[in-house]
Amino acid sequence: MNDPSKGKILALAGGVGGAKLVVGLAKTIDPTNLMVIVNTGDDERFHGLHVSPDLDTVMYTLAGLSDPTNGWGIAGDSFRALEMLHRYGAENWFNLGDKDLGTHIRRTELLGEGLHLSEVTKQMCQQLGIESRLVPMSDHRIQTMLETEEGLLTMQEYFVRHRCEPKVSSIFFEGADQSEPSPDFKSALSDSLGLIICPSNPFLSIGPILAIPGVRESIESFDGVRVIVSPIIGGMALRGPAAKLLADLNFPVSSVGVLQQYSGLCDIFVIDHQDAHLSDNIRDLGVFPSVTSTIMDTQSDKERLAKFVVSLIR
Amino acid sequence: MNDPSKGKILALAGGVGGAKLVVGLAKTIDPTNLMVIVNTGDDERFHGLHVSPDLDTVMYTLAGLSDPTNGWGIAGDSFRALEMLHRYGAENWFNLGDKDLGTHIRRTELLGEGLHLSEVTKQMCQQLGIESRLVPMSDHRIQTMLETEEGLLTMQEYFVRHRCEPKVSSIFFEGADQSEPSPDFKSALSDSLGLIICPSNPFLSIGPILAIPGVRESIESFDGVRVIVSPIIGGMALRGPAAKLLADLNFPVSSVGVLQQYSGLCDIFVIDHQDAHLSDNIRDLGVFPSVTSTIMDTQSDKERLAKFVVSLIR
Repeated sequence: MNDPSKGKILALAGGVGGAKLVVGLAKTIDPTNLMVIVNTGDDERFHGLHVSPDLDTVMYTLAGLSDPTNGWGIAGDSFRALEMLHRYGAENWFNLGDKDLGTHIRRTELLGEGLHLSEVTKQMCQQLGIESRLVPMSDHRIQTMLETEEGLLTMQEYFVRHRCEPKVSSIFFEGADQSEPSPDFKSALSDSLGLIICPSNPFLSIGPILAIPGVRESIESFDGVRVIVSPIIGGMALRGPAAKLLADLNFPVSSVGVLQQYSGLCDIFVIDHQDAHLSDNIRDLGVFPSVTSTIMDTQSDKERLAKFVVSLIR
Repeated sequence: MNDPSKGKILALAGGVGGAKLVVGLAKTIDPTNLMVIVNTGDDERFHGLHVSPDLDTVMYTLAGLSDPTNGWGIAGDSFRALEMLHRYGAENWFNLGDKDLGTHIRRTELLGEGLHLSEVTKQMCQQLGIESRLVPMSDHRIQTMLETEEGLLTMQEYFVRHRCEPKVSSIFFEGADQSEPSPDFKSALSDSLGLIICPSNPFLSIGPILAIPGVRESIESFDGVRVIVSPIIGGMALRGPAAKLLADLNFPVSSVGVLQQYSGLCDIFVIDHQDAHLSDNIRDLGVFPSVTSTIMDTQSDKERLAKFVVSLIR
């Protein structure tokens, strides 16, 4: 049972960086043994439709549908419905492709019929032929909110509308207090061989997951090996505002600043060769550093890093 | 005030045939003096979205967006969202284009915010630059139901899914009892110079409008001239199941059968040259027959027939 190719692996993920490692993991182990817990703190209603940006990114990636250039949406999509919505006076700052809208329409319909988000996600992933389990962090509504110099913003307002420009003073997760983990997430926390936190934004992608009551405690007392992959390389995020948020919130703009967000949750911290000099600082935090190449440009990069991470659990 | 180019004209319409005359009327009189009352008995929810097929046909036609070949939807539309919905296991027998979905998404959102369908329609038409008033027959939910040899069907199930094939034994309008005309329809019934019933299906397009409590009585006592254009030419409907329904329901398959549906509601009945021989039968029903060419293939056909109808009111 200590062979991770035979036991369940639990991966926590947010958007694009997370999805890259997830797609590598699904090629490395038996995909049916992989459960991916996805952030839903970015979920928002656009035009009356329930949009789950991170769930969609991971779902499209695992289904082979994702747009390799944008990092969001479906490859080769068009934007006719959105143009029409704009003609009717609706806002169009959030890009929603036509195929992509099929996802949002279907999800909204099924939620409207009373299904929980985790049931809806399971059904939709099955229809797309995804073998791994994709599980929203919670069936409750949790909304990531950013206190910024431009006022209080939702995650998508900050990320898309304001292009991560306003300085952030604090982040909180509305509704987290009254929430609980989705049922499959809860049981996987107690019966998985290994737990991987993907190279996702610690504040905006993983932070909401850890804000759900009981999750941090369950990971603290997790039985298997806990591996975290840093999303910061050489003081910069490959994508998104992780580095900027570390600075805004007065943490070191480095993998060390990332690890400070995961106190008590990490056995092995995977950093890039460029950050090998931080190994001692990581050991000082009571965590075992593991150095490799963490850049995932190609499919083989993704599989190589996934194999490396799985070997650490083994 | 007896010049219809200066007074309000009220037109009752359903789908394609009605939309053709309406577009001619909007070119013939000051378009701001034209109010079109549209059937909403075909409205149905698809994928959780409120779809109003007849409203859309007339709205797209007046906005110059309609597909000249199909008679429904927007010209040059694509079907990417629908393909995706089908991948998720949703039914796709009802064609919904991508641009078209922009309409349904917007309408559903505004209805969800608590606006009435007539307010939503007004707002959307203004955004599309339509100068005439487009008014749903009622803000209440009225659903046209057909008792057929294949069981009880909604209008779209009968029309699209079953291609009008099952024999119909009766038609009724669910919810009509508890409904009332939309506010603008109600007031227009008492202050318009003329009333035109467009060449639409008397059972499925105009029938639902007349089923609203008080509408038939208001038209019976209407002050101005009431002109009805027959949708049947030489015993055939140019489009749709009007002729078939006349036969199914044991009425003469002719303009006379149509006129029998409008007892007490018509001053002048416009028929095609091919039906000139029915003039005496029409006079026997107490109505003045008026013979012209009622086929509307081209834009100039539409304007010619509209001018003719307006001249009858004058």
